[in-house]
Amino acid sequence: MRATVAGLHAELVNYDLVVWTAGNVSGRIPGEDLFVIKPSGISYDELTPENMVVCDLDGNLVEGAHAPSSDTAAHAYVYRNMPEVGGVVHTHSTFASAWAARGEAVPCVLTAMADEFGGEIPVGPFALIGDDSIGQGVVETLKGHRSPAVLMRNHGVFTIGKDPKAAVKAAVMCEDVARTVHVARQLGTPLPIGPDHIDRLYDRYQNVYGQRSPR
Amino acid sequence: MRATVAGLHAELVNYDLVVWTAGNVSGRIPGEDLFVIKPSGISYDELTPENMVVCDLDGNLVEGAHAPSSDTAAHAYVYRNMPEVGGVVHTHSTFASAWAARGEAVPCVLTAMADEFGGEIPVGPFALIGDDSIGQGVVETLKGHRSPAVLMRNHGVFTIGKDPKAAVKAAVMCEDVARTVHVARQLGTPLPIGPDHIDRLYDRYQNVYGQRSPR
Amino acid sequence: MRATVAGLHAELVNYDLVVWTAGNVSGRIPGEDLFVIKPSGISYDELTPENMVVCDLDGNLVEGAHAPSSDTAAHAYVYRNMPEVGGVVHTHSTFASAWAARGEAVPCVLTAMADEFGGEIPVGPFALIGDDSIGQGVVETLKGHRSPAVLMRNHGVFTIGKDPKAAVKAAVMCEDVARTVHVARQLGTPLPIGPDHIDRLYDRYQNVYGQRSPR
Amino acid sequence: MRATVAGLHAELVNYDLVVWTAGNVSGRIPGEDLFVIKPSGISYDELTPENMVVCDLDGNLVEGAHAPSSDTAAHAYVYRNMPEVGGVVHTHSTFASAWAARGEAVPCVLTAMADEFGGEIPVGPFALIGDDSIGQGVVETLKGHRSPAVLMRNHGVFTIGKDPKAAVKAAVMCEDVARTVHVARQLGTPLPIGPDHIDRLYDRYQNVYGQRSPR
Repeated sequence: MRATVAGLHAELVNYDLVVWTAGNVSGRIPGEDLFVIKPSGISYDELTPENMVVCDLDGNLVEGAHAPSSDTAAHAYVYRNMPEVGGVVHTHSTFASAWAARGEAVPCVLTAMADEFGGEIPVGPFALIGDDSIGQGVVETLKGHRSPAVLMRNHGVFTIGKDPKAAVKAAVMCEDVARTVHVARQLGTPLPIGPDHIDRLYDRYQNVYGQRSPR
Repeated sequence: MRATVAGLHAELVNYDLVVWTAGNVSGRIPGEDLFVIKPSGISYDELTPENMVVCDLDGNLVEGAHAPSSDTAAHAYVYRNMPEVGGVVHTHSTFASAWAARGEAVPCVLTAMADEFGGEIPVGPFALIGDDSIGQGVVETLKGHRSPAVLMRNHGVFTIGKDPKAAVKAAVMCEDVARTVHVARQLGTPLPIGPDHIDRLYDRYQNVYGQRSPR
Repeated sequence: MRATVAGLHAELVNYDLVVWTAGNVSGRIPGEDLFVIKPSGISYDELTPENMVVCDLDGNLVEGAHAPSSDTAAHAYVYRNMPEVGGVVHTHSTFASAWAARGEAVPCVLTAMADEFGGEIPVGPFALIGDDSIGQGVVETLKGHRSPAVLMRNHGVFTIGKDPKAAVKAAVMCEDVARTVHVARQLGTPLPIGPDHIDRLYDRYQNVYGQRSPR
Repeated sequence: MRATVAGLHAELVNYDLVVWTAGNVSGRIPGEDLFVIKPSGISYDELTPENMVVCDLDGNLVEGAHAPSSDTAAHAYVYRNMPEVGGVVHTHSTFASAWAARGEAVPCVLTAMADEFGGEIPVGPFALIGDDSIGQGVVETLKGHRSPAVLMRNHGVFTIGKDPKAAVKAAVMCEDVARTVHVARQLGTPLPIGPDHIDRLYDRYQNVYGQRSPR
């Protein structure tokens, strides 16, 4: 899990979701009340399996020579309250954060959004770092939506997944659709997709896509 | 053909036309009712000639250890109904998909568009994945235009070519002109190019350009 | 000169000024009525000193196994009519081409523009490929301005320099300022820079900057 | 310090803050009235510890085979007048320069801005190169704000830090938030963050973040 989490940060860099040290990936250790997360303030090209840190579900450092990410409390809150979640990602990716700065959900006007998010990407509350406020905002907002991504107001994005790779995929797709819908909106109003069509696309994608059910 | 199709996916990545696994290239096998296509849900850096899959023109898997791309039915429909087509590409590239989200054709206001597309890049219907609807929409729209690219409403782009490389080129040029015309429109109205000028540019480019007819 | 011209195409790729094969660099051979130019329709990663072609100032192929760039006539016209020019570059770079699509000059609202262009980047006429029209438009427009770059209407950019590297620099800077001024204009009106300030910046940059006059 | 300053220029390239030779980093030599700066007009991939130049705090060349950056006088003025500063960076990065072209401060509407800049990124005066005007404008503007970055009108960005790496980080973050706030503003008005919240975020980030105080 240390190697997986360290390696997945390269995808955040590769897809231009982060600058400097401002984003992080974590992964729950299967069968234990622990998760692996990025150390705080370490640059992406210095991340190794060895310098990842291990925390318990209250966000306390359990193993590691560095302080955990300053966003650890939010990750821990998600793992405590969403037992089905195996990975969490946080970024300040440009287009998603721009929707978040306006406090505006990304409307579902692309079939790829229906596939992946099953509807709009919702907005969570404004919350200060330092206690459980961010984690609470993430969990309460996600529980009311099919979307694995939430835009935290004036802040950035949190995504979840069954494992860290799925959460990273959600972060990549979130920025991609946030950008495309932004660009579409710059010159007019995107055409809506009906809720029934969104349901059919979401159901198919979640159940058929990929190598899970070869035909 | 497996090596060609596998290799051309690198151009989709190189030109930022795709994220994660959301785009695909296929190529008809000359002289046979078969085509090679990307396997479903496999990341671009894992593609090899060996894991490409071969399908018949009804989209049935003929050879390969993986399930074919979830867009295989659309590719198959194009090959069945457009015998002159040797390659098909599908992407959700940002600017083309933004025009598609508004259901708006890209107007031909650049000489490079006249060269490559011979006019506007048209919009096809909204269609759900799962049967022939997407393929039908692609073929019916392309048959009425000189453009090798069609913007499928709320979805993305399909392009065709005499071979897979030509279809990839059309996908690259489609995103490039979709972006430039978008940017031009952000600050005003691009100047039109007259239909006669478009015809002259298109005819010259299709017949003279490149190494086909050295002078 | 073959090696220089072949190598400089990598800068066009590096700075995202070109896609596929849609841009070219040429360089006059000092002391001779000849210039080196990119072959037509060859991709950038296949360019070598050996496959560059040599043309006379009427654009006729003098040496080389490939057809010269389809823009050769325009390059040749510039060399015939501007003896001080040693390098020419043509691109369809996104932001410059967007201003060109509207037929609008880029106003000089950045000190870097005053330095490099000495004022606005002007717009040349609409011209079809195939005779001297493009070359004439380039030369006539450049002769009335200090700018080494001209936006050809609905088409793209031509830049000139004392040698090919200077022309490539002008193409890079042209796209950079076209993008920044576009972005500035999206949210309001950039503040003007007075003509006397533009003159002082231009004079200083052309005469003092770089390693030409160490102090 | 020569190696540090030479190496940090790679971050300017990596984060797309500069084109050609138009940006520079400098670093004060601890305990001496000297600083290391980029040579003028040398491309980024040719920079080495050896070709960096050393200047005194009046901007005079003390050591080095090349002329110092044309922006040396501005760097020197900052070091003379802000003894706590150990690094200075100057760029023409796109989005920051676009705000600068309109003479408009970037409003603090992102928690990441509150963290790093403690409020808006302010605008300094229009100033011509050639004397102390730019340096004076930088210093006077920065002295009235917590921001380590200033947008110089119609020009670009200057950032400061306790060392050159901190100044580079400020330049990277400045462009990142200038871009995100620009994108947010394109489709409406970002929600404000209250001054008390900005204070709490700034205080926490400056005192707790990173590896300085492991918990």
